[in-house]
Amino acid sequence: MISDEAFPVEPWRIRETQLVFDLLPQTESIFALSNGHIGLRGNLDEGEPFGLPGTYLNGFYETRPLPYAEAGFGYPEDGQSIVDVTNGKLIRLLVEDEPFDVRYGDLLSHERVLDMRAGTLTREAEWKSPAGKHVRVTSVRLVSLAQRGLAAIEYIVEAVDDPVRVTLQSELVANEDQPEPSDDPRVASVLKNPLKAMQHEVSDNGAVLIHRTRASKLMMAAAMDHVVEAPGRVDISGDAGGDWARTTVVCGLQPGEKLRLVKYLAYGWSSIRSRPALRDQVAAAIAGARYTGWDGLLDSQREYLDDFWDSADVEVDGDADCQQAVRFGLFHVIQAAARAERRAIAGKGLTGTGYDGHAFWDTEGYVLPVLTYTAPHAAADALRWRSSTLDLACDRARELDLDGASFPWRTIAGEECSAYWPAGTAAFHVNADIAMAFDRYRVVTGDHSLEKDCGLAVLVETARLWMSLGHHDRNGLWRIDGVTGPDEYTAVVRDNVFTNLMAANNLRIAVDACHRNPDAASDLGVDNEETAAWRDAAEAVHIPYDDELGVHPQCDGFTTLREWDFSANTEYPLLLHEPYVRLYPAQVVKQADLVLAMQWQSHAFTAEQKARNVDYYEKRTTRDSSLSACTQAVMCAEVGHLELAHDYAYEAALIDLRNLHHNTGDGLHLASLAGSWTALVGGFGGLRDDEGMLSLNPHLPSGIKRLCFRLRWRNFRVTVEADHSSVTYTLRDGPHHRLTIRHAGEPLEINTDASTTVPVQPVTPLLPTPTQPPGREPMRRHLQKSDLES
Amino acid sequence: MISDEAFPVEPWRIRETQLVFDLLPQTESIFALSNGHIGLRGNLDEGEPFGLPGTYLNGFYETRPLPYAEAGFGYPEDGQSIVDVTNGKLIRLLVEDEPFDVRYGDLLSHERVLDMRAGTLTREAEWKSPAGKHVRVTSVRLVSLAQRGLAAIEYIVEAVDDPVRVTLQSELVANEDQPEPSDDPRVASVLKNPLKAMQHEVSDNGAVLIHRTRASKLMMAAAMDHVVEAPGRVDISGDAGGDWARTTVVCGLQPGEKLRLVKYLAYGWSSIRSRPALRDQVAAAIAGARYTGWDGLLDSQREYLDDFWDSADVEVDGDADCQQAVRFGLFHVIQAAARAERRAIAGKGLTGTGYDGHAFWDTEGYVLPVLTYTAPHAAADALRWRSSTLDLACDRARELDLDGASFPWRTIAGEECSAYWPAGTAAFHVNADIAMAFDRYRVVTGDHSLEKDCGLAVLVETARLWMSLGHHDRNGLWRIDGVTGPDEYTAVVRDNVFTNLMAANNLRIAVDACHRNPDAASDLGVDNEETAAWRDAAEAVHIPYDDELGVHPQCDGFTTLREWDFSANTEYPLLLHEPYVRLYPAQVVKQADLVLAMQWQSHAFTAEQKARNVDYYEKRTTRDSSLSACTQAVMCAEVGHLELAHDYAYEAALIDLRNLHHNTGDGLHLASLAGSWTALVGGFGGLRDDEGMLSLNPHLPSGIKRLCFRLRWRNFRVTVEADHSSVTYTLRDGPHHRLTIRHAGEPLEINTDASTTVPVQPVTPLLPTPTQPPGREPMRRHLQKSDLES
Repeated sequence: MISDEAFPVEPWRIRETQLVFDLLPQTESIFALSNGHIGLRGNLDEGEPFGLPGTYLNGFYETRPLPYAEAGFGYPEDGQSIVDVTNGKLIRLLVEDEPFDVRYGDLLSHERVLDMRAGTLTREAEWKSPAGKHVRVTSVRLVSLAQRGLAAIEYIVEAVDDPVRVTLQSELVANEDQPEPSDDPRVASVLKNPLKAMQHEVSDNGAVLIHRTRASKLMMAAAMDHVVEAPGRVDISGDAGGDWARTTVVCGLQPGEKLRLVKYLAYGWSSIRSRPALRDQVAAAIAGARYTGWDGLLDSQREYLDDFWDSADVEVDGDADCQQAVRFGLFHVIQAAARAERRAIAGKGLTGTGYDGHAFWDTEGYVLPVLTYTAPHAAADALRWRSSTLDLACDRARELDLDGASFPWRTIAGEECSAYWPAGTAAFHVNADIAMAFDRYRVVTGDHSLEKDCGLAVLVETARLWMSLGHHDRNGLWRIDGVTGPDEYTAVVRDNVFTNLMAANNLRIAVDACHRNPDAASDLGVDNEETAAWRDAAEAVHIPYDDELGVHPQCDGFTTLREWDFSANTEYPLLLHEPYVRLYPAQVVKQADLVLAMQWQSHAFTAEQKARNVDYYEKRTTRDSSLSACTQAVMCAEVGHLELAHDYAYEAALIDLRNLHHNTGDGLHLASLAGSWTALVGGFGGLRDDEGMLSLNPHLPSGIKRLCFRLRWRNFRVTVEADHSSVTYTLRDGPHHRLTIRHAGEPLEINTDASTTVPVQPVTPLLPTPTQPPGREPMRRHLQKSDLES
Repeated sequence: MISDEAFPVEPWRIRETQLVFDLLPQTESIFALSNGHIGLRGNLDEGEPFGLPGTYLNGFYETRPLPYAEAGFGYPEDGQSIVDVTNGKLIRLLVEDEPFDVRYGDLLSHERVLDMRAGTLTREAEWKSPAGKHVRVTSVRLVSLAQRGLAAIEYIVEAVDDPVRVTLQSELVANEDQPEPSDDPRVASVLKNPLKAMQHEVSDNGAVLIHRTRASKLMMAAAMDHVVEAPGRVDISGDAGGDWARTTVVCGLQPGEKLRLVKYLAYGWSSIRSRPALRDQVAAAIAGARYTGWDGLLDSQREYLDDFWDSADVEVDGDADCQQAVRFGLFHVIQAAARAERRAIAGKGLTGTGYDGHAFWDTEGYVLPVLTYTAPHAAADALRWRSSTLDLACDRARELDLDGASFPWRTIAGEECSAYWPAGTAAFHVNADIAMAFDRYRVVTGDHSLEKDCGLAVLVETARLWMSLGHHDRNGLWRIDGVTGPDEYTAVVRDNVFTNLMAANNLRIAVDACHRNPDAASDLGVDNEETAAWRDAAEAVHIPYDDELGVHPQCDGFTTLREWDFSANTEYPLLLHEPYVRLYPAQVVKQADLVLAMQWQSHAFTAEQKARNVDYYEKRTTRDSSLSACTQAVMCAEVGHLELAHDYAYEAALIDLRNLHHNTGDGLHLASLAGSWTALVGGFGGLRDDEGMLSLNPHLPSGIKRLCFRLRWRNFRVTVEADHSSVTYTLRDGPHHRLTIRHAGEPLEINTDASTTVPVQPVTPLLPTPTQPPGREPMRRHLQKSDLES
């Protein structure tokens, strides 16, 4: 747990006021910088001490054989693991002969600041060397949002009391040592020396290293170049070997004098381009950086973010924690996506090696809803990446004796990498989640080009998958057996309500897409018989319901399974303390499943069903997945448990700033961070879009005085500002003057001439506030000071 | 496939008339000798060529880490693999300077005979060396049933045409080279050099090698000693190293002269005894052998088997194939069990490394029913072995958060070694199978001492397991969720009928055992409340039934799963060509499951239900498991499909002599071999005992003119002789003069004074003979000549 005193609550910054060695793994993740292409963990400039050294390139992975003690047909043979590539963040400082190392000498002060408007990580340290030499070190680091292949560091060292000779060694280092592996299955496998040195070039001012992965045969180049400002004589020299390159700068400083180094760092990789092509690519990026200059890079960084925040910012008056955290979440979401450009948005972005760097359904299910409303270009890019793997998904479906496409549960490059099929291959809902994300993009942006270009094929092939997975029973009900829904504590089930509703939705939106694009559909072999069969299956889909209890079973029979013994077995997460053979047949839920169905397919449930279902599943949900709290926030808000919803919104938002799942050190929980936006905007703003309309229905908990959020809807920019009594909708601009939205279920026309203010529609909960499993009450905000310091 | 011409049909022998190199893996299994303690594959004396070299000691294994690409709580960390121990079968012959190798020179004739009354493997070869020297080689090999630690070989070489100098090198060799591993999950993992040399001793006449496994730390000793008879001057010398020892015999032979070598081979192993103790143990075994002499060993071997056949033999007039095969099956069953003495009876006995040498539910479910009626002392020993692992099973239950004992799905020494929990840990029925075997032993033998000694504790702890696995639903039905029945193509299901019936039976027999042994039960903490709860659960057990179809679903909902597409997917076994994610939710059955429930819990089904269920499941059962055909034989016979039953009996019996599952080379299918007895005696003899009575009801198919079998029942020896019209029951001897049995459902008293002949009760099938999945029609006997030669 990270105490809430680690980072003072400031609206636009994450500021660490002192360096805590034990928190290094976590702060490296929190202070990670990325543009979706390059990711730099917040490792100290001098490299040591570290929790997990990390420099990542999106899509750059190594393969490794997946071992099975008992093999099975269709099990993936090879896994893909994110690679810690050549580290270019390294700048070592020697004060006289002594290396600047925070573990030695006296660290007089140390502050790091992640500035979410500037897009920079700043560090200021005052240090007295063991020999008593006093220096001030300032570094500013950025990964450029404007120039995709580029990162840069400004490093300044100043002599404070005495004249000193300082030496900077700015480096590129490949195949860094990694910490020892853990037994936790959520942690990545460790690759040892994954990079094979191919070429190194060195000049006085910089160097290039080219490496290739041993098994996946991906080639990467890393280049560095330096601009040095020094008060007097300065020596600059370079040298390099296969796995390292170094630019050395030596000068003398009088008290008050500074040595300033600007390091430009360029990365490129390819599976097909040649060594010279990659070498030239990084050289060009360096040339571009020198042309733009350090100040130019800073300016373009801020410009990019200003534009983002203009459509994305959420103001949360009255809850400073959530205010800071939701911006932190949005900042990391845009960092993960901004320049990913047809590469995956991984579950942990490019902030760590957790889950091997894989992308899951988190991308389409949790991250893209946010991006679609706030940075639609990035959502489109991510969907284009997914569609680029359609052929692989079709191959996988063939292997599984299925029609259409079966997208992977976890992957970097598109191949299925899940080695445990009951919670991997069987979780076919990922396909419907992807389909829904394509359709949401079209509905929300009004941009039909993506569907034409690639979305239609995804919708058609996923529809075909569902047709081969489902079947009509003897009573004409369309059922899907042997699949796993979002909840991984009950797997390989019959008629999972979430999956069945999402599959039916997939079929319906595929029908509609074919009607919108008849020629393209025909090219894909779709005819009227096929779409009729899709429509029929969607109509006949079986949604089990427990009449006696008045709730939806998460899957067929769920509500008659044995209850979990919460009096005895409450070591969380349960998956680390209980076997699947006990978890699966019990009424214990890892994460929102039926409750997520009510969020994503809201129209399929009555208000009373929603209230009863929330009540039933709250008591049985352990939130052992980081994907749960944000969904619970949304649905608790909808049924009127606003304070509980606020607790869950807090938990989703603070997951990494407080290390609530104890694994922030392996990388951030992007889905939960994105979910903090969803908790506020979907929960307290009431945003829904599952019926193709922009629907809103704000209700605030007592702890939030005012909630203001912005979003994009079909080229309109909309601001929603709510307090406890009224809501003001502002249409800032757009293709027309008017837009009809839904407020509290009723149509409301808003226009660009003036804001429209309407009263909040009161919500009264049908049932009392539900309880949670013992030990899984949410971290209530009013307890946070006393409880969280331990 | 092995053609039926490979082994001429002879009632008491398996005779191979020529050596076929491609069939070596299979014939090594078929010609394997064992006494349940030592197992020698039928490798050629000279060691090469070979399919799989194999010398095994029951219970002697090496551990290896079980790898998981995605780990889970409660997954076993270590596997156990049977070890190919020091090979003492090796006798190399040099004719002049040329090694006797059947791949070189001219093999003029070669015959091997497994004699099932003598208990020997005889080999006769005439060979002309590349240099034209003609010799006749005869060897006779046995693994002593009388002296547990002993094997012996008589090796005779005779000069035919010319004088020759012959050299014999009789050897012990540890860490033999193994063939390359296969991808088939049913094949064992390959251990490389598992044995560490500890000590070697050599004399002129023999040697001792002592080794220890590297990880499991088991120590073993192998000793050899020789008696040599030669016509003239003979030189005998010995030498040895860590992994080898050699006794060399050289002499000259004139045409017609013979060199005769008798090799005594002793084995011992222990996890706790010291090196000197083991060395002395094998030396004592050698001394015993020399004292008994070769002829004495042969005599005692035949004596043991005469006694066995007296109570076990089955005569099958009219079907010479089945006649030979059922004796082959019984011979290997007694070989696997005779002197196992509190070690497991593995799925493949000691005939190969298939399934890593593990014991499964096959032991109690398929092998012990046969032994209980034919060699009850061996059944008792096997049950004592199982009970010796009760503490480990209790530990495993604790680990799984269960009460009582959870016996392993697969093991050598008692620890769970199954790395795939849905078809391992979840197959909890193994516990009820074990409990049933204890109770059957008591019912059939009338011997209550086993229950007192150790059976009661097993019954109590397994009953406790079921109580913690099952639960009452809101309607008071007792249900068991999340378990896997015998059919591994549908796993982790709700209310598997087989499991529920067997669990209820487990609870009932535990109640009865506690009443029989009140004090011992009390010592185990059982009180009246506990037994009342067991009785109540057994009474309330839920047995799902599909009213619309009039059949029992194998598990809840099974009959409404999608049908398997047998028009497209018929590459068998399906598990090697289809993923579990597709198999599990389809109505496709690997092996008898509901049908097995009808055999083992016969009283729980009406005749009409049996007929309808057989019909339903026949169409959906692929028999991809070797455990299936024998059960289908029994139930097809019961419902009147006698010809189909005969086909299945043939398939069960001939599984290895015809290599029907294409993996006889990895070891024999002991359960199916035992099942050939069950198919004949349970199927055509109608033997049932699930209600505590000896029940018989013979009906013969047209191809069997007369069936005669013997069995033991409560110290009576009973012979049953049936033809198509009448049955003669003979009570040969016993504790009383009279015994009441059931014939065709009615009580019948038989006595020791005279045989009792009664008419066969005719059976008329309710439904037409069912069909099987395409490509899974049984190997019909009338097609065998034309079909099987390919």
